[in-house]
Amino acid sequence: MISKPTILVTNDDGINAPGIRALISVMAEIGEVLVVAPDSPQSGMGHAITTNNTLYLNKISRDDDEITEYSCSGTPVDCVKLAVNEILKKKPDLCVSGVNHGSNSSINVIYSGTMSAAVEAGIEGIPAIGFSLGDYSWNADFETLKPYIRKITTEVLTKKLLEGTVLNVNFPKPKHGDIKGIKICRQAKALWIEKFDKRKTPYGRDYYWLTGDFVNLDKGEDTDEWALANGYISIVPVQFDLTAHHAIQHLNSWDF
Amino acid sequence: MISKPTILVTNDDGINAPGIRALISVMAEIGEVLVVAPDSPQSGMGHAITTNNTLYLNKISRDDDEITEYSCSGTPVDCVKLAVNEILKKKPDLCVSGVNHGSNSSINVIYSGTMSAAVEAGIEGIPAIGFSLGDYSWNADFETLKPYIRKITTEVLTKKLLEGTVLNVNFPKPKHGDIKGIKICRQAKALWIEKFDKRKTPYGRDYYWLTGDFVNLDKGEDTDEWALANGYISIVPVQFDLTAHHAIQHLNSWDF
Repeated sequence: MISKPTILVTNDDGINAPGIRALISVMAEIGEVLVVAPDSPQSGMGHAITTNNTLYLNKISRDDDEITEYSCSGTPVDCVKLAVNEILKKKPDLCVSGVNHGSNSSINVIYSGTMSAAVEAGIEGIPAIGFSLGDYSWNADFETLKPYIRKITTEVLTKKLLEGTVLNVNFPKPKHGDIKGIKICRQAKALWIEKFDKRKTPYGRDYYWLTGDFVNLDKGEDTDEWALANGYISIVPVQFDLTAHHAIQHLNSWDF
Repeated sequence: MISKPTILVTNDDGINAPGIRALISVMAEIGEVLVVAPDSPQSGMGHAITTNNTLYLNKISRDDDEITEYSCSGTPVDCVKLAVNEILKKKPDLCVSGVNHGSNSSINVIYSGTMSAAVEAGIEGIPAIGFSLGDYSWNADFETLKPYIRKITTEVLTKKLLEGTVLNVNFPKPKHGDIKGIKICRQAKALWIEKFDKRKTPYGRDYYWLTGDFVNLDKGEDTDEWALANGYISIVPVQFDLTAHHAIQHLNSWDF
């Protein structure tokens, strides 16, 4: 008899977000689930860790299931570190993060707490997948994603990811209609053009809200942005060796 | 007459850290300097941005120079975004970040606010360099680094980085003796093994401090860790296309 895999579930929208609840329900069909997720929204936290402050874990009791759940006062990366080292005291067989309320395609991978949790698991040698939906709504439809989440997760558990890689899975915005299938992609070249919303406090001091427009600079049809705009699920293999290996020869020609 | 380059200086240790003061003094010899740096330590913030809170800029007056300086309530990445979009209203010719008090070699690049500021500049199309010293001390010796900082910066301004790359420059720990030279390197394969320091609040609740040991898994002599351990300055070209291109073919063989 093959034992069920241990699956760590986390996210960056917080433990009560509908996206993670949907992800937990799929994972409970596949393995033994441990949930360790932030107690408050941690979107845009990137790969932040908490070293200047204390960390709290809060065990949660829910009547409706037998899954072990903890909320955590820290970032998504803190959640993974605490889950592996303090709660499980061993590596889980898989870590899944999400389903994020909002896209983490192209350059968003670098700002995303959801994806940073998956990357942290990858660094620790744990197979990992981040799932995101291109819909910020709290009431987004996660139900139709479940068969795809199950399929992708099962493939990762059986076929194994290459060492040093994790998956960034994005589901298209619902406006693109029914999902047409899955495309393996590269990260599109894109960036955010900031538009700071400058305001004054009631006491006369200037302050800013960070807002911006997403700009896709990439015309390629092998990118995640192309796949999503055309109704496909995008899967980008992501690595955490950030070395631009192709630039080493160029730099060696410099006068150092 | 060639006009002086505009240079944005930031860091993650805060605007008053000796490391950034040393960096500012070198940059003031090379170009027109704008400093926008966090008003408090932001180490380990990775590529975090502030979307759930307001951002403040505080113009700083110093008697001893004519450099324009702002402290910022946000993360290092916020500093870059505000500098480019709100203060300069154009791209600077260069962004330098650091000098960090502590190493940002190997996997530390991913947790580092210092390097994330440089990467953010790179995403925005600005040539960028992060500088770090393998010494956490507030009183570390930055003076001996200055000729190297000047040299590396001048090379970047004249020779140009490849598109989509920034530099991660690390100086060896002083215990390794005199600096032997500069090596172009790849990021060593390494990770942190966490050791959470579990304590009790005065009120009986458990809490944790994140601590850990750095473990280098990489025996290669072409890595930043090897260079630093052997008394060399390491320069790793870093990219923000996180796609594991070599894994795309592997994933295409899966059953999707």
